[in-house]
Amino acid sequence: MSRPPGRKQENHKISRELFVLTYGALVAQLCKDYEKDEDVNSCLDRMGYGIGVRLIDDFLARSAVKKCRSYSETANMIAQVAFKMYLGVTPSVSCSSAAGNEFSLILDKNPLVDFVEELPAERASLCYCNLLCGVIRGALEMVHLAAEVTFLQDRLKGDAVTEIGITFLRKAEDRKHKRN
Amino acid sequence: MSRPPGRKQENHKISRELFVLTYGALVAQLCKDYEKDEDVNSCLDRMGYGIGVRLIDDFLARSAVKKCRSYSETANMIAQVAFKMYLGVTPSVSCSSAAGNEFSLILDKNPLVDFVEELPAERASLCYCNLLCGVIRGALEMVHLAAEVTFLQDRLKGDAVTEIGITFLRKAEDRKHKRN
Repeated sequence: MSRPPGRKQENHKISRELFVLTYGALVAQLCKDYEKDEDVNSCLDRMGYGIGVRLIDDFLARSAVKKCRSYSETANMIAQVAFKMYLGVTPSVSCSSAAGNEFSLILDKNPLVDFVEELPAERASLCYCNLLCGVIRGALEMVHLAAEVTFLQDRLKGDAVTEIGITFLRKAEDRKHKRN
Repeated sequence: MSRPPGRKQENHKISRELFVLTYGALVAQLCKDYEKDEDVNSCLDRMGYGIGVRLIDDFLARSAVKKCRSYSETANMIAQVAFKMYLGVTPSVSCSSAAGNEFSLILDKNPLVDFVEELPAERASLCYCNLLCGVIRGALEMVHLAAEVTFLQDRLKGDAVTEIGITFLRKAEDRKHKRN
Protein backbone atom coordinates (compact mmCIF):
# COMPACT_ATOMS: atom_id res chain seq x y z
CA MET A 1 0.00 0.00 0.00
CA SER A 2 2.91 2.33 0.62
CA ARG A 3 4.20 1.81 -2.89
CA PRO A 4 4.20 4.92 -5.09
CA PRO A 5 1.35 4.61 -7.59
CA GLY A 6 1.91 3.69 -11.21
CA ARG A 7 5.41 2.31 -10.97
CA LYS A 8 6.36 -0.86 -9.16
CA GLN A 9 9.52 -0.35 -7.16
CA GLU A 10 10.68 -3.99 -7.43
CA ASN A 11 10.75 -3.69 -11.18
CA HIS A 12 13.83 -1.58 -10.84
CA LYS A 13 15.72 -3.91 -8.59
CA ILE A 14 17.79 -6.92 -9.32
CA SER A 15 19.98 -9.11 -7.18
CA ARG A 16 23.30 -7.58 -6.29
CA GLU A 17 25.05 -10.94 -6.48
CA LEU A 18 24.32 -11.28 -10.19
CA PHE A 19 25.56 -7.76 -10.82
CA VAL A 20 28.70 -8.25 -8.78
CA LEU A 21 29.58 -11.48 -10.60
CA THR A 22 28.83 -9.95 -14.00
CA TYR A 23 30.98 -6.95 -13.15
CA GLY A 24 33.72 -9.36 -12.11
CA ALA A 25 33.47 -11.07 -15.51
CA LEU A 26 33.81 -7.68 -17.20
CA VAL A 27 36.94 -6.78 -15.23
CA ALA A 28 38.41 -10.22 -15.88
CA GLN A 29 37.80 -9.80 -19.61
CA LEU A 30 39.52 -6.40 -19.62
CA CYS A 31 42.44 -7.91 -17.73
CA LYS A 32 42.73 -10.44 -20.55
CA ASP A 33 42.49 -7.65 -23.14
CA TYR A 34 44.98 -5.26 -21.60
CA GLU A 35 48.28 -6.11 -20.08
CA LYS A 36 48.75 -2.86 -18.17
CA ASP A 37 46.57 -2.10 -15.14
CA GLU A 38 46.46 1.54 -16.22
CA ASP A 39 44.78 0.54 -19.49
CA VAL A 40 42.19 -1.57 -17.67
CA ASN A 41 41.57 1.35 -15.30
CA SER A 42 41.03 3.84 -18.11
CA CYS A 43 38.84 1.42 -20.00
CA LEU A 44 36.65 0.92 -16.92
CA ASP A 45 36.53 4.67 -16.40
CA ARG A 46 35.55 5.21 -20.03
CA MET A 47 32.84 2.55 -19.88
CA GLY A 48 31.56 4.06 -16.63
CA TYR A 49 31.49 7.50 -18.24
CA GLY A 50 29.24 6.15 -21.01
CA ILE A 51 26.98 4.57 -18.40
CA GLY A 52 26.81 7.75 -16.30
CA VAL A 53 25.87 9.82 -19.32
CA ARG A 54 22.87 7.52 -19.88
CA LEU A 55 22.03 6.86 -16.23
CA ILE A 56 21.57 10.53 -15.28
CA ASP A 57 18.17 10.77 -16.99
CA ASP A 58 16.97 7.75 -15.08
CA PHE A 59 18.34 9.27 -11.88
CA LEU A 60 16.69 12.64 -12.37
CA ALA A 61 13.38 11.04 -13.31
CA ARG A 62 13.30 8.59 -10.43
CA SER A 63 14.80 10.70 -7.67
CA ALA A 64 12.86 13.87 -8.56
CA VAL A 65 15.60 15.84 -6.81
CA LYS A 66 15.92 19.59 -7.19
CA LYS A 67 18.94 21.37 -8.63
CA CYS A 68 21.82 21.40 -6.15
CA ARG A 69 23.00 24.85 -5.08
CA SER A 70 26.50 23.91 -4.00
CA TYR A 71 29.23 21.35 -4.58
CA SER A 72 28.61 20.13 -1.07
CA GLU A 73 24.94 19.55 -1.79
CA THR A 74 25.88 17.70 -4.98
CA ALA A 75 28.35 15.44 -3.17
CA ASN A 76 25.72 14.61 -0.56
CA MET A 77 23.18 13.91 -3.27
CA ILE A 78 25.55 11.45 -4.95
CA ALA A 79 26.19 9.64 -1.68
CA GLN A 80 22.75 9.69 -0.09
CA VAL A 81 20.46 9.45 -3.09
CA ALA A 82 22.39 8.04 -6.06
CA PHE A 83 24.54 5.44 -4.25
CA LYS A 84 21.54 4.38 -2.20
CA MET A 85 19.37 4.09 -5.30
CA TYR A 86 21.83 2.26 -7.53
CA LEU A 87 24.01 0.27 -5.18
CA GLY A 88 22.00 0.09 -2.00
CA VAL A 89 24.72 1.65 0.16
CA THR A 90 25.26 5.15 1.51
CA PRO A 91 28.86 6.35 1.69
CA SER A 92 29.74 9.04 4.20
CA VAL A 93 30.87 12.36 2.73
CA SER A 94 33.63 14.66 3.84
CA CYS A 95 34.93 17.86 2.33
CA SER A 96 38.65 17.72 1.98
CA SER A 97 39.67 21.16 0.73
CA ALA A 98 39.38 24.70 2.06
CA ALA A 99 38.24 25.76 -1.41
CA GLY A 100 35.16 23.58 -0.93
CA ASN A 101 35.45 21.75 -4.23
CA GLU A 102 37.05 18.47 -3.10
CA PHE A 103 35.01 15.75 -1.48
CA SER A 104 35.50 12.19 -0.37
CA LEU A 105 32.89 9.47 -0.48
CA ILE A 106 33.88 6.88 2.09
CA LEU A 107 32.54 3.35 1.81
CA ASP A 108 32.95 1.05 4.79
CA LYS A 109 31.72 -1.72 2.56
CA ASN A 110 32.05 -1.75 -1.18
CA PRO A 111 29.13 -3.67 -2.66
CA LEU A 112 31.00 -4.41 -5.90
CA VAL A 113 33.68 -6.57 -4.33
CA ASP A 114 31.55 -9.15 -2.48
CA PHE A 115 33.15 -12.05 -4.27
CA VAL A 116 36.64 -10.60 -4.58
CA GLU A 117 39.03 -11.46 -1.80
CA GLU A 118 42.12 -9.61 -2.96
CA LEU A 119 43.73 -8.46 -6.16
CA PRO A 120 46.26 -10.84 -7.69
CA ALA A 121 49.86 -9.74 -7.06
CA GLU A 122 50.42 -8.97 -10.75
CA ARG A 123 47.42 -6.63 -10.77
CA ALA A 124 48.49 -4.41 -7.88
CA SER A 125 47.64 -1.16 -9.68
CA LEU A 126 44.20 -2.24 -10.80
CA CYS A 127 41.38 0.04 -9.67
CA TYR A 128 38.86 -2.76 -9.65
CA CYS A 129 35.83 -0.52 -9.24
CA ASN A 130 36.98 2.28 -11.53
CA LEU A 131 33.73 1.98 -13.46
CA LEU A 132 32.08 3.83 -10.56
CA CYS A 133 34.39 6.83 -11.01
CA GLY A 134 33.47 7.00 -14.66
CA VAL A 135 29.76 6.73 -13.89
CA ILE A 136 29.95 9.66 -11.45
CA ARG A 137 32.06 11.73 -13.87
CA GLY A 138 29.71 11.06 -16.80
CA ALA A 139 26.55 11.79 -14.80
CA LEU A 140 28.00 15.03 -13.40
CA GLU A 141 29.05 16.19 -16.83
CA MET A 142 25.47 15.86 -18.03
CA VAL A 143 24.38 18.33 -15.36
CA HIS A 144 27.19 20.65 -16.46
CA LEU A 145 29.58 19.85 -13.65
CA ALA A 146 33.09 18.93 -14.68
CA ALA A 147 34.84 16.78 -12.12
CA GLU A 148 37.79 14.50 -11.59
CA VAL A 149 36.79 11.29 -9.89
CA THR A 150 39.36 8.78 -8.65
CA PHE A 151 39.88 6.14 -6.01
CA LEU A 152 41.96 7.53 -3.16
CA GLN A 153 41.81 4.43 -0.96
CA ASP A 154 40.71 0.90 -1.67
CA ARG A 155 40.10 -1.90 0.80
CA LEU A 156 41.07 -4.34 -1.94
CA LYS A 157 44.55 -2.84 -1.71
CA GLY A 158 44.72 -3.15 2.05
CA ASP A 159 43.40 0.31 2.95
CA ALA A 160 41.05 0.56 5.92
CA VAL A 161 38.20 1.96 3.83
CA THR A 162 37.32 2.56 0.21
CA GLU A 163 37.45 6.26 -0.62
CA ILE A 164 36.36 7.91 -3.85
CA GLY A 165 37.65 11.45 -4.34
CA ILE A 166 35.57 13.96 -6.33
CA THR A 167 37.20 17.23 -7.30
CA PHE A 168 34.79 19.65 -8.92
CA LEU A 169 36.58 21.68 -11.55
CA ARG A 170 35.82 25.33 -11.79
CA LYS A 171 32.99 26.09 -14.17
CA ALA A 172 33.63 27.95 -17.41
CA GLU A 173 31.47 30.87 -16.23
CA ASP A 174 33.47 31.13 -13.01
CA ARG A 175 36.65 31.39 -15.00
CA LYS A 176 35.11 33.99 -17.29
CA HIS A 177 33.97 36.07 -14.33
CA LYS A 178 37.42 35.85 -12.82
CA ARG A 179 39.04 36.99 -16.02
CA ASN A 180 36.79 40.06 -16.34
CA MET B 1 7.87 -6.17 9.91
CA SER B 2 7.42 -8.83 7.28
CA ARG B 3 11.14 -8.85 6.53
CA PRO B 4 12.91 -12.11 7.39
CA PRO B 5 14.97 -11.56 10.54
CA GLY B 6 18.71 -11.08 10.51
CA ARG B 7 19.16 -10.25 6.86
CA LYS B 8 17.98 -7.05 5.25
CA GLN B 9 16.37 -7.74 1.92
CA GLU B 10 17.38 -4.41 0.36
CA ASN B 11 21.04 -5.20 0.91
CA HIS B 12 20.75 -7.72 -1.87
CA LYS B 13 19.17 -5.43 -4.36
CA ILE B 14 20.65 -2.92 -6.72
CA SER B 15 19.19 -0.86 -9.50
CA ARG B 16 18.47 -2.77 -12.66
CA GLU B 17 19.44 0.17 -14.84
CA LEU B 18 23.03 0.09 -13.60
CA PHE B 19 23.20 -3.65 -14.22
CA VAL B 20 21.69 -3.39 -17.68
CA LEU B 21 24.10 -0.66 -18.74
CA THR B 22 27.07 -2.52 -17.28
CA TYR B 23 26.01 -5.68 -19.08
CA GLY B 24 25.76 -3.63 -22.26
CA ALA B 25 29.33 -2.42 -21.75
CA LEU B 26 30.44 -6.03 -21.34
CA VAL B 27 28.77 -7.14 -24.56
CA ALA B 28 30.17 -4.12 -26.42
CA GLN B 29 33.66 -4.97 -25.19
CA LEU B 30 33.32 -8.57 -26.38
CA CYS B 31 32.09 -7.32 -29.75
CA LYS B 32 35.32 -5.31 -29.97
CA ASP B 33 37.33 -8.37 -28.93
CA TYR B 34 35.74 -10.88 -31.26
CA GLU B 35 34.82 -10.39 -34.85
CA LYS B 36 32.46 -13.36 -35.11
CA ASP B 37 29.10 -13.28 -33.33
CA GLU B 38 29.53 -16.98 -32.54
CA ASP B 39 32.68 -16.20 -30.56
CA VAL B 40 30.92 -13.44 -28.60
CA ASN B 41 28.05 -15.84 -27.92
CA SER B 42 30.31 -18.59 -26.60
CA CYS B 43 32.30 -16.13 -24.54
CA LEU B 44 29.09 -14.84 -22.93
CA ASP B 45 27.93 -18.41 -22.33
CA ARG B 46 31.29 -19.30 -20.76
CA MET B 47 31.24 -16.23 -18.52
CA GLY B 48 27.66 -17.00 -17.53
CA TYR B 49 28.64 -20.58 -16.72
CA GLY B 50 31.29 -19.31 -14.31
CA ILE B 51 28.73 -17.01 -12.72
CA GLY B 52 26.11 -19.77 -12.40
CA VAL B 53 28.61 -22.07 -10.74
CA ARG B 54 29.18 -19.44 -8.05
CA LEU B 55 25.62 -18.11 -7.85
CA ILE B 56 24.03 -21.46 -7.03
CA ASP B 57 25.22 -21.39 -3.40
CA ASP B 58 23.70 -17.95 -2.96
CA PHE B 59 20.51 -19.21 -4.55
CA LEU B 60 20.22 -22.30 -2.37
CA ALA B 61 21.00 -20.32 0.78
CA ARG B 62 18.57 -17.50 0.08
CA SER B 63 15.71 -19.41 -1.49
CA ALA B 64 15.80 -22.29 0.99
CA VAL B 65 14.09 -24.42 -1.66
CA LYS B 66 13.88 -28.18 -1.36
CA LYS B 67 15.34 -30.64 -3.85
CA CYS B 68 13.28 -30.78 -7.04
CA ARG B 69 11.81 -34.17 -7.85
CA SER B 70 11.35 -33.71 -11.57
CA TYR B 71 12.68 -31.72 -14.54
CA SER B 72 9.37 -29.92 -14.62
CA GLU B 73 9.72 -28.84 -11.00
CA THR B 74 13.27 -27.66 -11.73
CA ALA B 75 12.18 -25.62 -14.74
CA ASN B 76 9.44 -23.98 -12.68
CA MET B 77 11.90 -23.27 -9.88
CA ILE B 78 14.25 -21.52 -12.32
CA ALA B 79 11.42 -19.38 -13.67
CA GLN B 80 9.46 -18.62 -10.54
CA VAL B 81 12.14 -18.46 -7.90
CA ALA B 82 15.51 -17.83 -9.56
CA PHE B 83 14.46 -15.39 -12.30
CA LYS B 84 12.26 -13.54 -9.82
CA MET B 85 15.07 -13.36 -7.28
CA TYR B 86 17.86 -12.32 -9.62
CA LEU B 87 16.16 -10.39 -12.40
CA GLY B 88 12.82 -9.41 -10.90
CA VAL B 89 10.81 -11.07 -13.67
CA THR B 90 8.95 -14.38 -13.90
CA PRO B 91 9.01 -16.13 -17.28
CA SER B 92 6.22 -18.52 -18.11
CA VAL B 93 7.23 -22.16 -18.50
CA SER B 94 6.10 -24.70 -21.04
CA CYS B 95 7.19 -28.24 -21.63
CA SER B 96 8.02 -28.79 -25.25
CA SER B 97 8.77 -32.50 -25.54
CA ALA B 98 6.88 -35.69 -24.95
CA ALA B 99 9.95 -37.05 -23.17
CA GLY B 100 9.46 -34.34 -20.55
CA ASN B 101 13.03 -33.09 -20.62
CA GLU B 102 12.66 -30.00 -22.83
CA PHE B 103 11.29 -26.76 -21.45
CA SER B 104 10.86 -23.21 -22.62
CA LEU B 105 11.09 -20.14 -20.44
CA ILE B 106 9.16 -17.40 -22.17
CA LEU B 107 9.85 -13.79 -21.32
CA ASP B 108 7.37 -11.18 -22.49
CA LYS B 109 9.86 -8.60 -21.37
CA ASN B 110 13.57 -9.17 -21.13
CA PRO B 111 14.97 -7.02 -18.33
CA LEU B 112 18.50 -7.09 -19.78
CA VAL B 113 17.66 -5.20 -22.96
CA ASP B 114 16.02 -2.07 -21.52
CA PHE B 115 18.46 0.24 -23.25
CA VAL B 116 18.93 -1.81 -26.40
CA GLU B 117 16.65 -0.98 -29.29
CA GLU B 118 17.87 -3.45 -31.85
CA LEU B 119 21.01 -5.30 -32.79
CA PRO B 120 23.24 -3.63 -35.37
CA ALA B 121 22.90 -5.19 -38.83
CA GLU B 122 26.43 -6.58 -38.73
CA ARG B 123 25.68 -8.37 -35.46
CA ALA B 124 22.60 -10.27 -36.61
CA SER B 125 23.71 -13.58 -35.06
CA LEU B 126 24.56 -12.11 -31.68
CA CYS B 127 22.72 -13.73 -28.75
CA TYR B 128 22.87 -10.55 -26.71
CA CYS B 129 21.72 -12.17 -23.47
CA ASN B 130 23.64 -15.42 -23.86
CA LEU B 131 25.16 -14.87 -20.42
CA LEU B 132 21.82 -16.00 -18.99
CA CYS B 133 22.04 -19.36 -20.73
CA GLY B 134 25.48 -19.90 -19.27
CA VAL B 135 24.29 -18.93 -15.79
CA ILE B 136 21.45 -21.47 -15.92
CA ARG B 137 23.72 -24.18 -17.33
CA GLY B 138 26.40 -23.55 -14.68
CA ALA B 139 23.95 -23.45 -11.79
CA LEU B 140 22.22 -26.64 -12.94
CA GLU B 141 25.50 -28.45 -13.28
CA MET B 142 26.29 -27.71 -9.65
CA VAL B 143 23.13 -29.55 -8.63
CA HIS B 144 24.15 -32.44 -10.88
CA LEU B 145 21.84 -31.64 -13.76
CA ALA B 146 23.42 -31.49 -17.17
CA ALA B 147 21.50 -29.29 -19.57
CA GLU B 148 21.72 -27.50 -22.88
CA VAL B 149 20.48 -23.94 -22.60
CA THR B 150 20.02 -21.73 -25.66
CA PHE B 151 17.95 -18.86 -26.94
CA LEU B 152 15.18 -20.14 -29.20
CA GLN B 153 13.52 -16.78 -29.84
CA ASP B 154 14.69 -13.26 -29.16
CA ARG B 155 12.66 -10.07 -29.34
CA LEU B 156 15.89 -8.26 -30.23
CA LYS B 157 15.84 -10.27 -33.44
CA GLY B 158 12.24 -9.46 -34.20
CA ASP B 159 10.60 -12.47 -32.56
CA ALA B 160 7.37 -11.89 -30.67
CA VAL B 161 8.81 -13.07 -27.36
CA THR B 162 12.14 -14.05 -25.89
CA GLU B 163 12.36 -17.79 -25.33
CA ILE B 164 15.09 -19.70 -23.55
CA GLY B 165 15.15 -23.43 -24.23
CA ILE B 166 16.39 -25.81 -21.56
CA THR B 167 17.00 -29.42 -22.53
CA PHE B 168 17.87 -31.62 -19.59
CA LEU B 169 20.30 -34.28 -20.68
CA ARG B 170 19.86 -37.73 -19.41
CA LYS B 171 21.73 -38.39 -16.20
CA ALA B 172 24.64 -40.83 -16.17
CA GLU B 173 22.70 -43.13 -13.82
CA ASP B 174 19.69 -43.14 -16.18
CA ARG B 175 21.92 -44.19 -19.05
CA LYS B 176 23.48 -46.90 -16.93
CA HIS B 177 20.07 -48.26 -15.92
CA LYS B 178 19.02 -48.28 -19.55
CA ARG B 179 22.08 -50.16 -20.61
CA ASN B 180 21.60 -52.88 -17.96
